[in-house]
Amino acid sequence: MTAKNESKNSDNAKPTVKEIPDKIVRRLPHYYVQLKNMLNKDVEYVSSEQLASIMGYSSSLIRRDLSHFGQFGKKSYGYDIHCLYSNLHRILGFNHEKSMVIIGAGFLGRALANNKSYEERGYLLRGIFDKDPAIIGLEFNNLRVMDVERAPEFIAENNIDVAALAVPALEAQKTADMLVKAGIKGIWDFTETPVEVPEDIILIEQNMNDGLCKISCKLVQKSK
Amino acid sequence: MTAKNESKNSDNAKPTVKEIPDKIVRRLPHYYVQLKNMLNKDVEYVSSEQLASIMGYSSSLIRRDLSHFGQFGKKSYGYDIHCLYSNLHRILGFNHEKSMVIIGAGFLGRALANNKSYEERGYLLRGIFDKDPAIIGLEFNNLRVMDVERAPEFIAENNIDVAALAVPALEAQKTADMLVKAGIKGIWDFTETPVEVPEDIILIEQNMNDGLCKISCKLVQKSK
Repeated sequence: MTAKNESKNSDNAKPTVKEIPDKIVRRLPHYYVQLKNMLNKDVEYVSSEQLASIMGYSSSLIRRDLSHFGQFGKKSYGYDIHCLYSNLHRILGFNHEKSMVIIGAGFLGRALANNKSYEERGYLLRGIFDKDPAIIGLEFNNLRVMDVERAPEFIAENNIDVAALAVPALEAQKTADMLVKAGIKGIWDFTETPVEVPEDIILIEQNMNDGLCKISCKLVQKSK
Repeated sequence: MTAKNESKNSDNAKPTVKEIPDKIVRRLPHYYVQLKNMLNKDVEYVSSEQLASIMGYSSSLIRRDLSHFGQFGKKSYGYDIHCLYSNLHRILGFNHEKSMVIIGAGFLGRALANNKSYEERGYLLRGIFDKDPAIIGLEFNNLRVMDVERAPEFIAENNIDVAALAVPALEAQKTADMLVKAGIKGIWDFTETPVEVPEDIILIEQNMNDGLCKISCKLVQKSK
């Protein structure tokens, strides 16, 4: 949670994964999406100023962030996007295989089952669970919904790393407790309610409604 | 996109909405969620250090951000959460009514139709659209799915402010063009593909897969 590992003199240092502080981890997915888009357009180099204008961060912040991935800049051309991308890929751990389950097979859980983003990020979707007998047994993306009662055994036996939590808010804590007890390492939490887990469990809250706030704020600004 | 409006001397100034720069707008939804959770637990005051430990920002950043909402701190108790919350509510424009439609009634669109977060944020969900004849006519949250061909007329006639874009990536740009032409003011974009809109349109990308990146990064850090 602190920036104590952030060093302004790390430009030439071989980046190690441990050096990335939380506040930078938070921005990494944004870099990933932008760099991927650029590669898809066959762009080869990008300056911190160009990234700044696209991403809305200051160019100095971007230079500082990128220094954590090592030094890839060519003064005259900007940063080599292939290098940045491949190092970011490594830092994000996408080359490590992670197994995942989805808890909750409502519409959100089903959307997550159909998500096309797992493979390129190293995730292997192994199962989807629900407690509703009317939903158990349905198939989404070739996965048959299993009874959530079976989840603890499945997670333990298959050494599942990550669970997407797509249950109603009222069931969030109880389900998180079950996941922790079953040996889950990380929870991708869509419940938008406070969930408490032991310190060694990675809990990432995915607040789907962030955008509603930002749009509303900007609409008001424009109307003034 | 710049911090030119950020003033370190604004502690006692009456905050105006125009003064909030983009990089702070980006953090506002996080403050909103945290303050709401605290109010739900009947917490009355919070220090910047407490917020820092919960949110993972530095306490100095938090003090600077909050100075944009005016000065509510009582030295000995910390910030008055009710005051912060109500000012944040105003800055986020939740007291202004905004009408909204959803384009795409796949599982994600249906999850958005069932989303319980609109009312408290001042959004009124008015319609949901799809192009698939097998989906048109189905009902979600008391809204009957309409043919997307009818969307331009519906948006123009009903003066719709915001559209949630929940279509496949390949249809993203085409659909955004349609929305812009129909007079939409803001797009809440779930497509995770680059979409271009004119400068006066508010485009907020809601990258649902951010969390996958963060969890993966943290799993690697822990495994080292």
